[in-house]
Amino acid sequence: MKKIQPKLTLVGAGPGDPELITLKAVNALAYANVVLYDSLANKALLNHAPASVLKIFVGKRKGKHSLTQDEINKLIVKYALLFGNVVRLKGGDPFVFGRGYEEADYASLFGIPFEYIPGISSSTGVPGLSGIPVTHRGASESFWVITGTTKRGSVSKDVVLAAQTNATVVILMGLNKLEEIKNIYSKYGKNDTPVALIQNGSLPDEKIVSGTFKTIVDKAKKAKIASPAIIVIGEVVRLHQKFSIDKENLNFILN
Amino acid sequence: MKKIQPKLTLVGAGPGDPELITLKAVNALAYANVVLYDSLANKALLNHAPASVLKIFVGKRKGKHSLTQDEINKLIVKYALLFGNVVRLKGGDPFVFGRGYEEADYASLFGIPFEYIPGISSSTGVPGLSGIPVTHRGASESFWVITGTTKRGSVSKDVVLAAQTNATVVILMGLNKLEEIKNIYSKYGKNDTPVALIQNGSLPDEKIVSGTFKTIVDKAKKAKIASPAIIVIGEVVRLHQKFSIDKENLNFILN
Repeated sequence: MKKIQPKLTLVGAGPGDPELITLKAVNALAYANVVLYDSLANKALLNHAPASVLKIFVGKRKGKHSLTQDEINKLIVKYALLFGNVVRLKGGDPFVFGRGYEEADYASLFGIPFEYIPGISSSTGVPGLSGIPVTHRGASESFWVITGTTKRGSVSKDVVLAAQTNATVVILMGLNKLEEIKNIYSKYGKNDTPVALIQNGSLPDEKIVSGTFKTIVDKAKKAKIASPAIIVIGEVVRLHQKFSIDKENLNFILN
Repeated sequence: MKKIQPKLTLVGAGPGDPELITLKAVNALAYANVVLYDSLANKALLNHAPASVLKIFVGKRKGKHSLTQDEINKLIVKYALLFGNVVRLKGGDPFVFGRGYEEADYASLFGIPFEYIPGISSSTGVPGLSGIPVTHRGASESFWVITGTTKRGSVSKDVVLAAQTNATVVILMGLNKLEEIKNIYSKYGKNDTPVALIQNGSLPDEKIVSGTFKTIVDKAKKAKIASPAIIVIGEVVRLHQKFSIDKENLNFILN
């Protein structure tokens, strides 16, 4: 019998489009002995793993975690010791609010080494795919990516600081805090700051609305924007509208 | 004769490792009529484009731009009108300090549409590959990516604000401003903040040093850290050292 080599491979699945995964991630899936995957990872990616391999969904169902983080940690260790290479397929990047390091840390207590394979984070890829560059000369010299859902369940206090800068701000998992975020920006006189909400970025059912803090809460309701969605804040959002107009003109010219 | 369809495809080449490119980017290269590539894009990636296709280096040589941004913009338009699909292969992600949007904007003046294919940005991928997650519960609720080299040639003023937060801060193209950045953090009593410098991240000749602002300038000199390198600042950097130790222990256990 072949000796089991326990290993945890944290793999970034990218924002949703199954082509937005790296060659390295595809290779990692091909050598998986078990795949544990999240709700944000596209299921089409499971086809890169051998058909015989155990593939287990450990994500959220109807907003509720099917398993706690602690249960996932234990599953990783169990399967790594039993079968070898556990590929942990996570939406976006495992280290961008993916709790990947917690899993690696837990596995290391059992002598299980880990490998990290980065993924395209929604924080940069999704705005870009909507024609919003997170940085652009003259508009922003930095971008700040913040979680809308902290350990405490509240919006991160970093949003209060972010509202006082010119950085492009991207908030992940923050749609249900949109009104709270708007109030923070209002407090600093930034009602006219451009905002975009992008739901299901990079997927065929992608939806986007853009406006300013004055209009965005209403627009989101009208367009029925729902999670998973990202919030993009800052001058670069104006480029989205320009882009859309250009694209229409171009189609007109080229057709 | 086939009608020329002018197009600009902005493609993220990832941080350096040629396997850290997406399937979508590989497909885009296969359909390129011309490839214009930067110094930070791995040359091995050019093999994904047809052999017959024109491949032109437009990056920096010995720290000097071989072409200005304006010259690159004009080349894109010229080749798109002459040959069709111009793939602009850029290190990292085209919209993360890649000036990709400027190129798209310029091309649009000539009715040339663009497609954006995101890449793994060094800002998240490179720290992760060194065992530093940019976010980790209890250590950071956000990460802030800032350019060390603004239009004005100076370090971005956002660094002054960043030094007053608990965000993980990643500074790209800022190695030659390390002393200035250190002085900013010192001013806010943050001499003990952990810092890592990672040169050639994801490549076989990757080099990393870590310490605090008290020690990092000396350490960088001793280790002869040179550009291209990224600066990672914040509590998450401590996880790097832990990771290194764990890895040694693990090798001991597993061998």
